[in-house]
Amino acid sequence: MQTLRLALGERSYPIHIGAGLLGDAALYAPYVQGKRVAVVTNPVVAGLYLERVQQALAQAGAQSVPVLVDDGEKAKSWAVLDRVFDALLAARLGRDGVVVALGGGVVGDLAGFAAAVYQRGIPFLQVPTTLLAQVDSSVGGKTAINHARGKNMVGAFHQPLAVIADVASLDTLPERELRAGIAEVIKHGFILDLAFVDWLEANIEKLLARERAALEHAVRRSCELKAQVVAADERESGLRAILNFGHTFGHAIEAGAGYGEWLHGEAVATGMVMAAELSARAGTLRREDAERVKRLIARAGLPVKGPSLGIERYLELMQVDKKAAAGKVRFILLDGIGRAKLRGDLDDALIRESIAAALQ
Amino acid sequence: MQTLRLALGERSYPIHIGAGLLGDAALYAPYVQGKRVAVVTNPVVAGLYLERVQQALAQAGAQSVPVLVDDGEKAKSWAVLDRVFDALLAARLGRDGVVVALGGGVVGDLAGFAAAVYQRGIPFLQVPTTLLAQVDSSVGGKTAINHARGKNMVGAFHQPLAVIADVASLDTLPERELRAGIAEVIKHGFILDLAFVDWLEANIEKLLARERAALEHAVRRSCELKAQVVAADERESGLRAILNFGHTFGHAIEAGAGYGEWLHGEAVATGMVMAAELSARAGTLRREDAERVKRLIARAGLPVKGPSLGIERYLELMQVDKKAAAGKVRFILLDGIGRAKLRGDLDDALIRESIAAALQ
Repeated sequence: MQTLRLALGERSYPIHIGAGLLGDAALYAPYVQGKRVAVVTNPVVAGLYLERVQQALAQAGAQSVPVLVDDGEKAKSWAVLDRVFDALLAARLGRDGVVVALGGGVVGDLAGFAAAVYQRGIPFLQVPTTLLAQVDSSVGGKTAINHARGKNMVGAFHQPLAVIADVASLDTLPERELRAGIAEVIKHGFILDLAFVDWLEANIEKLLARERAALEHAVRRSCELKAQVVAADERESGLRAILNFGHTFGHAIEAGAGYGEWLHGEAVATGMVMAAELSARAGTLRREDAERVKRLIARAGLPVKGPSLGIERYLELMQVDKKAAAGKVRFILLDGIGRAKLRGDLDDALIRESIAAALQ
Repeated sequence: MQTLRLALGERSYPIHIGAGLLGDAALYAPYVQGKRVAVVTNPVVAGLYLERVQQALAQAGAQSVPVLVDDGEKAKSWAVLDRVFDALLAARLGRDGVVVALGGGVVGDLAGFAAAVYQRGIPFLQVPTTLLAQVDSSVGGKTAINHARGKNMVGAFHQPLAVIADVASLDTLPERELRAGIAEVIKHGFILDLAFVDWLEANIEKLLARERAALEHAVRRSCELKAQVVAADERESGLRAILNFGHTFGHAIEAGAGYGEWLHGEAVATGMVMAAELSARAGTLRREDAERVKRLIARAGLPVKGPSLGIERYLELMQVDKKAAAGKVRFILLDGIGRAKLRGDLDDALIRESIAAALQ
């Protein structure tokens, strides 16, 4: 097991990474002993891991109840959230209760937001079981549900007590979700670490083959990079926005195609191709580096072309992006491989051309 | 105008108290210049003050849109909150937008919670127009909506940028709401300031007659007392719980009678009578002081007897109180007039007797 630390003053927390961790009572005990715990998860994950987690919680001295939510992005809704509150109230969880988010990004976002606002905020633990959740969404405290007009439009910054990332749980992950998680791994390299991009280019087949050592390295390095950014800018007043590389286009793809049609990681992958194209056209990235971005994404088995929504629809969907300031959409551009920056002054024509270049 | 300051480090903010403030552009300008602003209010308050507030915002250099919500406690619901998000998204409010909560406690709680979670949190201003909101709910950052199983069960701690309390707006307040506000004023005396209780006993008729100087003093002293408590314990990990004196019983009354039947301040008033009775029975308050509590509440024209729900129903409703720890309900008791403390070890029989003593 390796343990990193996200440094946020009194909200600092450990990120444990290793095989078999989700059944380890000692990792839960400091947070749940003598408490009431609600384990929020979905039916698929529950079938695989719920019993093991509840056993570990019992060993750690907690009384736990499961709260099952729908599978998939549609669970990030008012209706499902309200059912979670119902379950927490029925289980008489007080302010000293603890929520455990057991599952992928959807469960983490939903359960984390439920914990953020239930009785004005109770603590929670992230136990991510997908690669995407382990390398990205479980770390950093962003929680949210979707709104009909945009993804993650309603949410909170609410840091977990700890992240318990069990890489053995990736063995059961569907192929498509593994690749979607690799998209966020690659993203961390593109925006922050050229050496990690070199490593990914050399090891992408090992990741796709789920070699344990390669996966563990990818999870650890991704969490390290993300933790540094979050420690420097918890609430995204500046630097943290670079983690959204590929996400402005990506959110438009997800919303335009209908939530759940594209996995988040797939949309981000294509969004990164568009953002690299935009970077090349804006003159911050060499053309050959934009091709390098696209090539690695394609090698990971991820889509490099977006759905044919029509360019105007893309622009409309991007208008509600949370990074927009005074109505102007802002983009994360690559400033060479391994460096990123936020730009809000880009010409509409460049944006249109970059979308057009990556359409099906 | 008098200005207090709530000291919370980088989240510190001013509380302005005086007549005619809600139309004063200079008070808004530091927070809204060049920004998009959504003014959340209800039809009654809108008819009285919206134009004046929007004019002041325009003078302060902001572009504002009104967002009308239902009047009354029923507005603190998922459905209304979702309509607020819809309006904010339609108005293209970005993270640099500002919400103005113009109205009473319901509008402040709802609009504040909307601001707390819209795009994971945007800033907001409190412009309270009822006595209850001016002396209590607009100060301290508590925001929430209700859940079918309990009041204020879903919410956030989200401090405003500033509180602008215009005492002239109390001229148009219905008599019943004025009295409900006085309940929270009196509460601050009971739990924190014997001298203020003496002043209230001498001046209660002036408050009921809406004498401007008396109202301004009552608002200022209440805000001072509350600000001290919040500064010491923003997230209610200890001391702040004393502000809930009368609220454990009060929430049960509100929920049991059906939200909106009893005004919050009325329920708290009767709740304080029950809590003083409990204090006397638990031996922390002299019998004559419990009578003094009841007498002042009666002189303010507030109810001293609760609805006949049946004692078991009271106990059941109190079980979901947010102050409950490990399933045990905790109460704020008076430790003499002007001092309060939290107790979680009270015998059920004492609680039953205290409710029974104050039933209709």
